[in-house]
Amino acid sequence: MQKKDFLKDAVKHIDIKAFDSTEIIEAMKDMSFTARDTAEAAKLLNRMISDDECTIILCIAGSTSAAGCMQIYADMVKYNIVDVVVATGAVIVDMDFFEALGFKHYKGSAFVDDKELRKLYIDRIYDTFIDEEQLQICDNTIKEIADSLARRPYSSREFIRQMGKYLTGNAKKPNSLVQVAYENDVPIFCPAFSDSSAGFGLVKHQAEDKENHVSIDSVKDFRELTEIKIKSTVSGLFIIGGGVPKNFAQDTVICAEVLGKPAEMHKYAVQITVADVRDGACSSSTLKEACSWGKVDSGCEQMVYAEATSVLPLIVSYVYHIRGWENRSKRKWNKILE
Amino acid sequence: MQKKDFLKDAVKHIDIKAFDSTEIIEAMKDMSFTARDTAEAAKLLNRMISDDECTIILCIAGSTSAAGCMQIYADMVKYNIVDVVVATGAVIVDMDFFEALGFKHYKGSAFVDDKELRKLYIDRIYDTFIDEEQLQICDNTIKEIADSLARRPYSSREFIRQMGKYLTGNAKKPNSLVQVAYENDVPIFCPAFSDSSAGFGLVKHQAEDKENHVSIDSVKDFRELTEIKIKSTVSGLFIIGGGVPKNFAQDTVICAEVLGKPAEMHKYAVQITVADVRDGACSSSTLKEACSWGKVDSGCEQMVYAEATSVLPLIVSYVYHIRGWENRSKRKWNKILE
Amino acid sequence: MQKKDFLKDAVKHIDIKAFDSTEIIEAMKDMSFTARDTAEAAKLLNRMISDDECTIILCIAGSTSAAGCMQIYADMVKYNIVDVVVATGAVIVDMDFFEALGFKHYKGSAFVDDKELRKLYIDRIYDTFIDEEQLQICDNTIKEIADSLARRPYSSREFIRQMGKYLTGNAKKPNSLVQVAYENDVPIFCPAFSDSSAGFGLVKHQAEDKENHVSIDSVKDFRELTEIKIKSTVSGLFIIGGGVPKNFAQDTVICAEVLGKPAEMHKYAVQITVADVRDGACSSSTLKEACSWGKVDSGCEQMVYAEATSVLPLIVSYVYHIRGWENRSKRKWNKILE
Amino acid sequence: MQKKDFLKDAVKHIDIKAFDSTEIIEAMKDMSFTARDTAEAAKLLNRMISDDECTIILCIAGSTSAAGCMQIYADMVKYNIVDVVVATGAVIVDMDFFEALGFKHYKGSAFVDDKELRKLYIDRIYDTFIDEEQLQICDNTIKEIADSLARRPYSSREFIRQMGKYLTGNAKKPNSLVQVAYENDVPIFCPAFSDSSAGFGLVKHQAEDKENHVSIDSVKDFRELTEIKIKSTVSGLFIIGGGVPKNFAQDTVICAEVLGKPAEMHKYAVQITVADVRDGACSSSTLKEACSWGKVDSGCEQMVYAEATSVLPLIVSYVYHIRGWENRSKRKWNKILE
Repeated sequence: MQKKDFLKDAVKHIDIKAFDSTEIIEAMKDMSFTARDTAEAAKLLNRMISDDECTIILCIAGSTSAAGCMQIYADMVKYNIVDVVVATGAVIVDMDFFEALGFKHYKGSAFVDDKELRKLYIDRIYDTFIDEEQLQICDNTIKEIADSLARRPYSSREFIRQMGKYLTGNAKKPNSLVQVAYENDVPIFCPAFSDSSAGFGLVKHQAEDKENHVSIDSVKDFRELTEIKIKSTVSGLFIIGGGVPKNFAQDTVICAEVLGKPAEMHKYAVQITVADVRDGACSSSTLKEACSWGKVDSGCEQMVYAEATSVLPLIVSYVYHIRGWENRSKRKWNKILE
Repeated sequence: MQKKDFLKDAVKHIDIKAFDSTEIIEAMKDMSFTARDTAEAAKLLNRMISDDECTIILCIAGSTSAAGCMQIYADMVKYNIVDVVVATGAVIVDMDFFEALGFKHYKGSAFVDDKELRKLYIDRIYDTFIDEEQLQICDNTIKEIADSLARRPYSSREFIRQMGKYLTGNAKKPNSLVQVAYENDVPIFCPAFSDSSAGFGLVKHQAEDKENHVSIDSVKDFRELTEIKIKSTVSGLFIIGGGVPKNFAQDTVICAEVLGKPAEMHKYAVQITVADVRDGACSSSTLKEACSWGKVDSGCEQMVYAEATSVLPLIVSYVYHIRGWENRSKRKWNKILE
Repeated sequence: MQKKDFLKDAVKHIDIKAFDSTEIIEAMKDMSFTARDTAEAAKLLNRMISDDECTIILCIAGSTSAAGCMQIYADMVKYNIVDVVVATGAVIVDMDFFEALGFKHYKGSAFVDDKELRKLYIDRIYDTFIDEEQLQICDNTIKEIADSLARRPYSSREFIRQMGKYLTGNAKKPNSLVQVAYENDVPIFCPAFSDSSAGFGLVKHQAEDKENHVSIDSVKDFRELTEIKIKSTVSGLFIIGGGVPKNFAQDTVICAEVLGKPAEMHKYAVQITVADVRDGACSSSTLKEACSWGKVDSGCEQMVYAEATSVLPLIVSYVYHIRGWENRSKRKWNKILE
Repeated sequence: MQKKDFLKDAVKHIDIKAFDSTEIIEAMKDMSFTARDTAEAAKLLNRMISDDECTIILCIAGSTSAAGCMQIYADMVKYNIVDVVVATGAVIVDMDFFEALGFKHYKGSAFVDDKELRKLYIDRIYDTFIDEEQLQICDNTIKEIADSLARRPYSSREFIRQMGKYLTGNAKKPNSLVQVAYENDVPIFCPAFSDSSAGFGLVKHQAEDKENHVSIDSVKDFRELTEIKIKSTVSGLFIIGGGVPKNFAQDTVICAEVLGKPAEMHKYAVQITVADVRDGACSSSTLKEACSWGKVDSGCEQMVYAEATSVLPLIVSYVYHIRGWENRSKRKWNKILE
């Protein structure tokens, strides 16, 4: 088999506007187990939208963007369903920015010989394939952007805004999350930014001038997100996966307290995950546990134990078609940070 | 809180005819991870329906019937999507027959004090509640049915047919799986029948006459199901959960061989489960592993790692609306067994 | 590769007497997560042993016997740590009785081509291999035993005693669970007996004389185990996996009530499993949930979320070396049932 | 209940030198499932130690340090079993540095009312409790350290070395991982350093002087770890959990290539995790999948699907008692970075 035989069926990102899950979600509301949890999560996201005071923070870890959910996240920004995004570097750079540059993810299989893929420079994410040579172009584009900037420490948010700006002139695919967020003044944070394709580009940038270069200050990210939390009063988390984005967004409540500007706990929280609570890790910790830390209020929290690609389209299609977002004012948090 | 405060919101069983998941499944087909697996499972079930030769065996373990999927299973029989059912005793007796008698499952919570439930005679299945006093009426009905029968060993299938017959005159809720299967000559097997509410009724029945009574011969079940497999040539499995029903249905291929009437491996197989392959149990073993045993052919098998309430409605709604079942001939396997 | 290349390294069953886990368990007692759960389970099993009134029921589902734990279970009977065994047919027949006949399980791999195994008549259990031709000899031995018995319904316990008796003269490997249990009057129940290699032998037996034959009455199993529960007053469950054995043993409390002889809930319970509570199945339901059903008392129950091969050796080695079993009287429950 | 009632039984960290797991590991080698995987992992770590060329990188995510494994990690550094540590900020700051300051983790329960804990300022990690007021002292100590440093961007490694230096004069508990690593010139990296208690202290530090302050440049971390990888030729990963540390350490191979200094794939890799491969996230991706990315060589990799507290003590006790580390030269990678 040749490379092109592996990379022929592109993943197509689901369009939650093209079908209406309202009836299914309403029916699931009266079931039990994960079906009911899914319906409750949809209703809770809708409540966040209806709460005029509420800033909604979307947290994304894992590879759902590569797996067909990329447009969902962009649509959540476009239709004013979320106000802030906290994600892993892989989600923002390797997946979203990567496709904005015109590249694709491909439908593959988990039952393959990884050594054969290695030889062909094909990277595998479970049952999905990527052309590694295209990823290298992505790395280099990050380097070019860094090269074009003033030498100083940046928050990841500041850097990602530059990526959004770059896309307004250079995108091959419109409506990427990075570009849509840029255009709507929705901040995107990657607290572990260098742990991604961006890291490769930035290391190369720094290696060329070890004294004078762009650096990424994750402390600044934390300051900025905490500032948003302080100014928001009410906030809600919509968490896909867990990991650093979940912990980082939760921690802003404590950080506000540390700064002497006590903020309310996150009032609403939804998490969709397959993580196993028994290992005591942050990804798997329940939202009730987060209450003991003073991060998430109890009462309006919902765990959905599912692999997100199977339930997220239902949840967001529901919220889209209920159209509570139509009357919602735009937060444009990027503006207050600059 | 009183009993009635816990038992007030009944679970409503989802009606997969009332909404059309065709568009969602078609979109999921081009995604990855569980979304694509779900779509592939729907398409594979549809292929089984289109294969004129194929007998479709529905295997059910776990509590999805209590959790809102009860009508899905009855509809699969009614609309000629499945030809044989293999299930746990709990699915058939404690859940389906129980509701046919007019009782309900109730929406509850996993975050309760089980001691308090105990005092109120409320049984809990994760986030679902049952009135234990009603379950006792169910036990007694089984005893009455046993009391009315000729004393001899029965296969569970024979006994469940008597339950179906009983319901034709006594059901408070129409269209239970037990009754619909009876009316459509679709056999239902419970290889561990006494491991359920049926067991309580039958023990009581036997205790009244320790020498002369109805007994349940699970070997006969195995003979009967193997006979169906032998006469079917082509067969497909649609498995919810795993456990004894999965193993029992798979084993008929080997049993046919033991009887000197070699049968083909099950040609198609779908399994929806959250079980973890790493423990080496049957429930969690992959359908590829079943190939090494000569039970399931490889190539047309699909695992869906999901809690079934969240994906089963999408899969069966798709198959229903594609309407391949309209031209399918009824197998009426009960007839050949009597 | 030839068959002998796959079947060359036999699984060796761990001998928990050959090493002493006391120090590790004591250290784990002061840790958290699964380590502490493991230590608590060991201590709870030890408490069951110290309670003079307590009948200890070992429930086994899954394939740990094939995976190196076979001698642990036999030793638990031999050293008077358990009084009753409830297991799947596969554990008792395909694994334990199979090895007693002189056959072996082999160390294999999960990363193989199952079609190739199929061609060689090798069956796979996750990373373990079995020679299918040897399994057929096991089937036939069951048939021979059935052929030698008076034609009537048997409980699985009665039949398994006959298997134990057979082994006293014919075993190639001493100290199998089936034989040791026979010799110590410890009853073994398989509530879904025909769902195993035994089923193949028994179907063949019945097929030769469809009117007059041995049958397996699982209702009788339930009556017998309930009788033990009623006579035991205090009881404890030690559960590996879940499935039918767990449910069956738990249900005896309810069954006693149905028979008008109310029994106390199981006072102690340990369960080792990787099952996921979120699917609402019996295997995964917590022991606290069992309290709502009036089956297991709360306060003395411990879940250990682990694949059993990794923690069971530590738990039973601890209990063995504490030597509480030395002063424990033998229950010999088989005697009261005959 | 008062705060002191919840915080009375401190977690005691297991000492893998105090017991010898050699016999258990050797026995598990001949079993199957997780037991054999555990034994293979122990043997593979031992192989890394025996390979003179090999730099061993310990990656830690999750809360095993809080749960009783803290001394294991410090001992791995002290006894020259690992050469580099990559961890989450929580592991290094909230857990290890926190205890070095004289504070404790406490044995708690997962079955508590989190609102009650909230009122008492007790934080919960699954079944483990922490005094939040003590965590605040930890935050402030970080701020003090930052205040004492020259204003410029630091890699997390540089900053953590300052924490180690601080402890040489101020530690209340000796032998913390941070201090032992400092004393042995073993670098510690936290690629998402601000996502922890350190973040709180650093945000406070920066808030006091928004123009001139210490910042944490995670790109520098990546450069430094890649430099180690380039100079190591052979490398092995020993991964607890997954998350950012796993991805970050794996990515150094690619980063070296990006810098034009191609490095070999990591030759050895062990990962202990409960993560579920089906969600396509980095934490759960298999080490075979990492081969397709050119990060981990296939052949010498071992996944252990277990909650780490239950198997890690066995693995490291084995390696300690085999004593292959006695003849191993110290890498002292910190020296080449300064």
